[in-house]
Amino acid sequence: MSERDFTFSTEIQVRFAETDAQGIAHNSTYLIWYEVGRIAYLAEVAGGYQHLRDEGLEALTIESHVRYLGAVRFDDRLRLHVRCGDLRGARFRFDYRVERLNGDAAPETVADGWTLHAIVDGTTLRPTRLPGWLREAIESANA
Amino acid sequence: MSERDFTFSTEIQVRFAETDAQGIAHNSTYLIWYEVGRIAYLAEVAGGYQHLRDEGLEALTIESHVRYLGAVRFDDRLRLHVRCGDLRGARFRFDYRVERLNGDAAPETVADGWTLHAIVDGTTLRPTRLPGWLREAIESANA
Amino acid sequence: MSERDFTFSTEIQVRFAETDAQGIAHNSTYLIWYEVGRIAYLAEVAGGYQHLRDEGLEALTIESHVRYLGAVRFDDRLRLHVRCGDLRGARFRFDYRVERLNGDAAPETVADGWTLHAIVDGTTLRPTRLPGWLREAIESANA
Amino acid sequence: MSERDFTFSTEIQVRFAETDAQGIAHNSTYLIWYEVGRIAYLAEVAGGYQHLRDEGLEALTIESHVRYLGAVRFDDRLRLHVRCGDLRGARFRFDYRVERLNGDAAPETVADGWTLHAIVDGTTLRPTRLPGWLREAIESANA
Repeated sequence: MSERDFTFSTEIQVRFAETDAQGIAHNSTYLIWYEVGRIAYLAEVAGGYQHLRDEGLEALTIESHVRYLGAVRFDDRLRLHVRCGDLRGARFRFDYRVERLNGDAAPETVADGWTLHAIVDGTTLRPTRLPGWLREAIESANA
Repeated sequence: MSERDFTFSTEIQVRFAETDAQGIAHNSTYLIWYEVGRIAYLAEVAGGYQHLRDEGLEALTIESHVRYLGAVRFDDRLRLHVRCGDLRGARFRFDYRVERLNGDAAPETVADGWTLHAIVDGTTLRPTRLPGWLREAIESANA
Repeated sequence: MSERDFTFSTEIQVRFAETDAQGIAHNSTYLIWYEVGRIAYLAEVAGGYQHLRDEGLEALTIESHVRYLGAVRFDDRLRLHVRCGDLRGARFRFDYRVERLNGDAAPETVADGWTLHAIVDGTTLRPTRLPGWLREAIESANA
Repeated sequence: MSERDFTFSTEIQVRFAETDAQGIAHNSTYLIWYEVGRIAYLAEVAGGYQHLRDEGLEALTIESHVRYLGAVRFDDRLRLHVRCGDLRGARFRFDYRVERLNGDAAPETVADGWTLHAIVDGTTLRPTRLPGWLREAIESANA
């Protein structure tokens, strides 16, 4: 992960349904949160994921990585830091850092990770180039 | 629910991801199990749900009801009893009973419920009549 | 359902992970939304669900009912109307109505339903009376 | 990932609820399948995950990695290949390969990945050494 700072974040609250019998958020839930973060990011910088779908495109997830750094519990308030980069042909990458907000105390990093995506045609699921408007929106968000 | 016996059943095992911080299977999971039961039923009696989708049809869920009669825990082995009936125009109903298998001891009913469905065109999501082959397959399974 | 109006509501946005291959929110997801609504309600009127858990109590779901009145899609913004009532011994009931917010157009009811709950000891899962403070908080929210 | 072959596998069928509006299994679902595979592995080689929980231990997931190599659809039958290794103090690692079974045609690899785990005390969630019986069971499964 590069040293560049995250410039976008969104908040979520841990749902009871996201916990498991260990009393903590289930490990698969983080990938759903990362997706919530990506979608909020795209809504902010690029008119929304639906904008991509309206052009007949989809973003497939082709790789995912999560580091679970601290247990997260029901009702915890989390800040998802999200950034996008590494645009190459049909591919791009999102990085994430998840902080737990602790009232007046300092936030605590509880997870990080990244996902790798490919732009595909929504019908054939074949790779296609990242649309120019999306590339420009992401590059301008990173500038 | 009519007195008629269930004639079809399938088994599942409770996944860890299906539990919540109460240490029991989350209440929303039962609707996923009911769907697993419906799909196994349709595979057995009517060539499978995909058969319906191949004709451009979908079965929408328009109502669901669950009674949670006993806590279900990680790794519990469950038998889902499933039956279909009440075919009227575009609509049909599934009934469910869930038993926990307890080794040599008698199985215990831990949930029951029903779901109501409508056959719709897969593109427009508008109601359409139950195909004849599906009606006949269900009626013959109930005979 | 009584004629009494809902006095509490909260908003959510449909997550991509909540959709299924029919292109709409999966029927099991509504029970997760209802739970999100209950928890927001309890946070507002009764100090939060965690307050109950801190007293060693849990609220088990013992029955659930959903009517799906209109397809809900990715990114739809929903308003969950929630109310609690029918307090009897260990039991209480929540009612829900889900509206889709349509920008400047009028909101549209897309689902309703109810869940029935029992207060139990968090360790034994045995029924126990609704704590007085919770009963009073709910009754005062309904006044 | 080492060159050593997988010696354990289990099969699952893709649930409708596991698909999303792209018509394929959602990326977070693979972590649930990996868990299903781990639990089946532990049932086979080490008396089951519940055996660990009965000793007051839990296995936390501390890192996860998934490569999505081919779209997986509703009703696809998958074989999960699972192996465990890299036992060090409180930590161990699982590797996975997911194949789609294609009737008479050759199976096709549709995903792989790994997860890293730590044995913790179930109450404090503090790391503790892998119990001897678990280490021996895993080493003997790999022999």
